[in-house]
Amino acid sequence: MGDGLSVFLAACRSLPTPYTPVWLMRQAGRYLPEYREVRSRHDFLTMCRTPELAAEVTVQPLRRFPLDAAIIFSDILLPLQAMGMELSFSEEEGPRLSPLRERRDVERLRPVEEADFDFLAQAIRLVCRELGDTPLIGFAGAPFTLASYAVEGGASRLYLRAKRLMWEDPGLWEELMDRLVQAVEVALAVQVRAGARAVQIFDSWAGVLSPRDYRERVLPYSRRVIEGAKRLGVPVIHFVHNGGGFLELVAETGPDVVGLDWRVGLREARKRLNGLAVQGNLDPAVLLSTPRTIEEAVRAILEEAEGRPGHVFNLGHGVLKDTPPENVAFLVEAVHRLSGR
Amino acid sequence: MGDGLSVFLAACRSLPTPYTPVWLMRQAGRYLPEYREVRSRHDFLTMCRTPELAAEVTVQPLRRFPLDAAIIFSDILLPLQAMGMELSFSEEEGPRLSPLRERRDVERLRPVEEADFDFLAQAIRLVCRELGDTPLIGFAGAPFTLASYAVEGGASRLYLRAKRLMWEDPGLWEELMDRLVQAVEVALAVQVRAGARAVQIFDSWAGVLSPRDYRERVLPYSRRVIEGAKRLGVPVIHFVHNGGGFLELVAETGPDVVGLDWRVGLREARKRLNGLAVQGNLDPAVLLSTPRTIEEAVRAILEEAEGRPGHVFNLGHGVLKDTPPENVAFLVEAVHRLSGR
Repeated sequence: MGDGLSVFLAACRSLPTPYTPVWLMRQAGRYLPEYREVRSRHDFLTMCRTPELAAEVTVQPLRRFPLDAAIIFSDILLPLQAMGMELSFSEEEGPRLSPLRERRDVERLRPVEEADFDFLAQAIRLVCRELGDTPLIGFAGAPFTLASYAVEGGASRLYLRAKRLMWEDPGLWEELMDRLVQAVEVALAVQVRAGARAVQIFDSWAGVLSPRDYRERVLPYSRRVIEGAKRLGVPVIHFVHNGGGFLELVAETGPDVVGLDWRVGLREARKRLNGLAVQGNLDPAVLLSTPRTIEEAVRAILEEAEGRPGHVFNLGHGVLKDTPPENVAFLVEAVHRLSGR
Repeated sequence: MGDGLSVFLAACRSLPTPYTPVWLMRQAGRYLPEYREVRSRHDFLTMCRTPELAAEVTVQPLRRFPLDAAIIFSDILLPLQAMGMELSFSEEEGPRLSPLRERRDVERLRPVEEADFDFLAQAIRLVCRELGDTPLIGFAGAPFTLASYAVEGGASRLYLRAKRLMWEDPGLWEELMDRLVQAVEVALAVQVRAGARAVQIFDSWAGVLSPRDYRERVLPYSRRVIEGAKRLGVPVIHFVHNGGGFLELVAETGPDVVGLDWRVGLREARKRLNGLAVQGNLDPAVLLSTPRTIEEAVRAILEEAEGRPGHVFNLGHGVLKDTPPENVAFLVEAVHRLSGR
């Protein structure tokens, strides 16, 4: 660390740090009473699209916990909305989209412009003003995850429609993925220009794919997104949920940091990732257990990271909604204490 | 191959075979109209517990397709029922059990006896009589998967209760796992004595664990089950669904064959498994696509297996209920044709 580079950004660049930085996926969320309070007055999409509200909930966890980074409150599906898809969220079923079924549905998607994400740029500027030196992370969904949501019309168990499109009409799949790359690139550029100092790409669903399908039909598009984000001058974290079976391919997408879920060991993973920096990877369920369980698990993860540079502590998935905030406080304190802060 | 050893059993022993043997997890199931016909007249548990019915549906797929092995129709939860737990199945929610909540619930579980599985032994004898040389596979759930079902009272999304018991009361966890090992050992012994010529251990839920939890709290019990089964003189296949993040640990349980889901590549997996025989690993969703997609995927998997001995072709998970039977016929034919039969 040095030259005013934050501990988090130094770790993303695999530089030595005085302690292990920590932030948590979904750290702004329903486990916090102050988040639920805002949410009780506004629906989820309104919160995403209103700069003051998005900024407020982004900063909430930073007021409670000495986290080493913030992540902008937003949703990976907003670029699909900007492309012209109908988007809504229901409490029970999660996101619903008007699904893409045919070529003309894909051709009707419009290219996004930076202006489509003005609300996001404004939210980021508000957050940066309040946060001072703490870096803010911007993010986007990976093209495959967005394609799955778009084709299925929401979450799915088996992603059969998305897979069949990919297998049976490779030309249309390419057309769709190309358009998604464009949208994601714009969304990321807006966030970096507004002040985000790192970005994370979430591939929430690529874990339903075989390595062959991932390599042939997904990896090239993720790589384009990641190369584009790197040209913006910020470190790129790539989180492929449940991608432990093909980490070697995730490394080939070219990120600075690979986000790992809790189903892989850090030591083994770093070997398979050829030494790339890693982020992770506490089982989020541990935060519903006792401080003793949390401390043991943190200690084991730090040991697996072998005190080497290039480790950002995180959960292996988002904070669960029943997580007691005091356990999050204990976790952040334990990561810092056990790693030498 | 030689000495009358079947192609399937030879592959399990990593011996050379004239072609790649194939069977499918859940090959006896709802995708077959003749299965649905039986199921329309009997509930699921009655089918499991009535030797003639279990034998009938076990043999159904073998009448249609030249599969290289059969697997007895049964359910991994029957040993829990034999231990004294209430078990029922509902169409919507799947299995329901009276959940274990406290030490006295665990202590009330009774040791099982071979006689508890008489219905299973009878079904196996009926099947063997009909099948002739085609080997029959017996099976059981792995201790962790059974413990999860028992503690959660059914399937679960996060397995929080099971994890918390494992983390917070290791003594009670050990007590429960010991009892499950005993029950599984008896269930497997009954099946082998009745005529099963290989066994598969299903760890359907271990993929929700971190490698550390798996290694410390699960692996030793799975290893005991597998060692016991090997002493019965049959090859043991160990399928850990979604275990691609810790294949090295799955290898340490000591099976002859590791069953792989479709999220890992066979070539990479075999390296990580130190050359153990492998079974798998077609994405079951491929069977809902076209013959062309099926053939491409089969070809890719056979290439990854590199024509070496020690490959049993299978899906990476059970046959999906909407699978067209003609696609299963095409798959079996393609595996045989492309591997040299």
